[in-house]
Amino acid sequence: VSGLSSAIYAGRYNLKTLVIGKEFGGETAKAGIIWNYPGIEKADGYEMIKTMVSQAESHGAEIKEETVINIEKKSDGIFTVMTAEKTYSCKAIVFANGSERRELNIPNEEKLKGKGVHYCITCDGPVYNGKIIAVVGGGDASVKSAILASEYASKVYLLARNTITAEPTNLEDLKKMGGKVEILLQTEVKELVGESKLEKIILSKEFNGRNELKIDGLLVEIGAMPDTEIAGKLGVNLDKAKYINVDNFMNTNIPGIFSAGDITSFFGS
Amino acid sequence: VSGLSSAIYAGRYNLKTLVIGKEFGGETAKAGIIWNYPGIEKADGYEMIKTMVSQAESHGAEIKEETVINIEKKSDGIFTVMTAEKTYSCKAIVFANGSERRELNIPNEEKLKGKGVHYCITCDGPVYNGKIIAVVGGGDASVKSAILASEYASKVYLLARNTITAEPTNLEDLKKMGGKVEILLQTEVKELVGESKLEKIILSKEFNGRNELKIDGLLVEIGAMPDTEIAGKLGVNLDKAKYINVDNFMNTNIPGIFSAGDITSFFGS
Repeated sequence: VSGLSSAIYAGRYNLKTLVIGKEFGGETAKAGIIWNYPGIEKADGYEMIKTMVSQAESHGAEIKEETVINIEKKSDGIFTVMTAEKTYSCKAIVFANGSERRELNIPNEEKLKGKGVHYCITCDGPVYNGKIIAVVGGGDASVKSAILASEYASKVYLLARNTITAEPTNLEDLKKMGGKVEILLQTEVKELVGESKLEKIILSKEFNGRNELKIDGLLVEIGAMPDTEIAGKLGVNLDKAKYINVDNFMNTNIPGIFSAGDITSFFGS
Repeated sequence: VSGLSSAIYAGRYNLKTLVIGKEFGGETAKAGIIWNYPGIEKADGYEMIKTMVSQAESHGAEIKEETVINIEKKSDGIFTVMTAEKTYSCKAIVFANGSERRELNIPNEEKLKGKGVHYCITCDGPVYNGKIIAVVGGGDASVKSAILASEYASKVYLLARNTITAEPTNLEDLKKMGGKVEILLQTEVKELVGESKLEKIILSKEFNGRNELKIDGLLVEIGAMPDTEIAGKLGVNLDKAKYINVDNFMNTNIPGIFSAGDITSFFGS
């Protein structure tokens, strides 16, 4: 989305613009129906991305479904972008290739995605009003997600493989939610069970005398992986978690290299 | 837009949310057809805002068409928001009341708005491909707008009431545009001429022996006025131009007070 949005604007400014990616739209394209995109009451993620592609093209941008394998900066300030198929030259680059949420890689996860298994509480939390949610993860993001989940759910389990390492203020906020939230430490999810939708999860350790837990929704919050290897090799500053550092105007530390969207260190959670 | 977007998200987080304003949607509502909103090929600004209002409401936010006249912070961290009609209490405030672009206040400006007279080159520049544009203003924004205008237009006049006070790098970029750009100093626009669309402008000073200039489009770039008086009285930090200072997460300096959109110091130009 940030890449296509950049292309729409660059195209309107009459800049010669090329968008390269192996697929477009990232999480939005796969999101199904989206309720929180301002201006579209009930957006079909995939259709919305198709519209953005066509907007970028109608504003003059060119779209290439290729995979970038390397980028080099030449001494005259021109960048050379290499894909498996071709080599392109340009004066400026916008890294907008997002980040991929980590998955559990356990049985039935793939099958139950969107059918009880989720990776974004902001996107999918509201459908669990009054229901039971388990949040997997021990970091700050998982604690914040558990707080949000407990705004909707009647019961929230927070499952951490080891212990909880969150900002104290977030942990306090979680504790304010009271008995609605239960924290299970040293507990892994081994398997998901369900056919058309998630029914229960199998735990690595007994809880209340059983090694399974009946829940309505599972939120996987175990981090994301931004694909910043090529940016890093170009000398772009990354933060500790390997996201691209940008300033208020989406400049990186290297002149001519910009970045936007989930791949940057600079987005709301 | 930023206020309604905040309300959609706050509503989805089950926060009790009230949106107060004397009108909604700001420039977007008045923009007519919008081509650069990602995800909507050809958006009617007014309809898009109606959709956002309905989205905010369907996510639980309440909308009040009232004018806020004062806000006070009480000692217990609760804010009291006073409108002409009523008083509301809340734990957090998002200032998202935008900014109004300054107008020339000259004859026929009102009549020719959107019919050759514009206030945003990013929004309206592309329709002037190969045409003649005059940009009014002597600040940095007007120089940047003249650069953008010269990407589209065959000829760009930059009219400054006094002199040009822009960042040297932007002035250099403008000069690179060559003879296409002409700068008229100590020149004011006194009147606009045209019936169904702008035809020419009357100047305070002769240019090429005449006190009028035939142009296709006039871009007024003489600054904007954010309405931050109430925020300022609450102790919110403002920048030199009276915009609200925010950090990456839209926090102001005062806990519980946030800000978003064109009223902040922190948006692309």
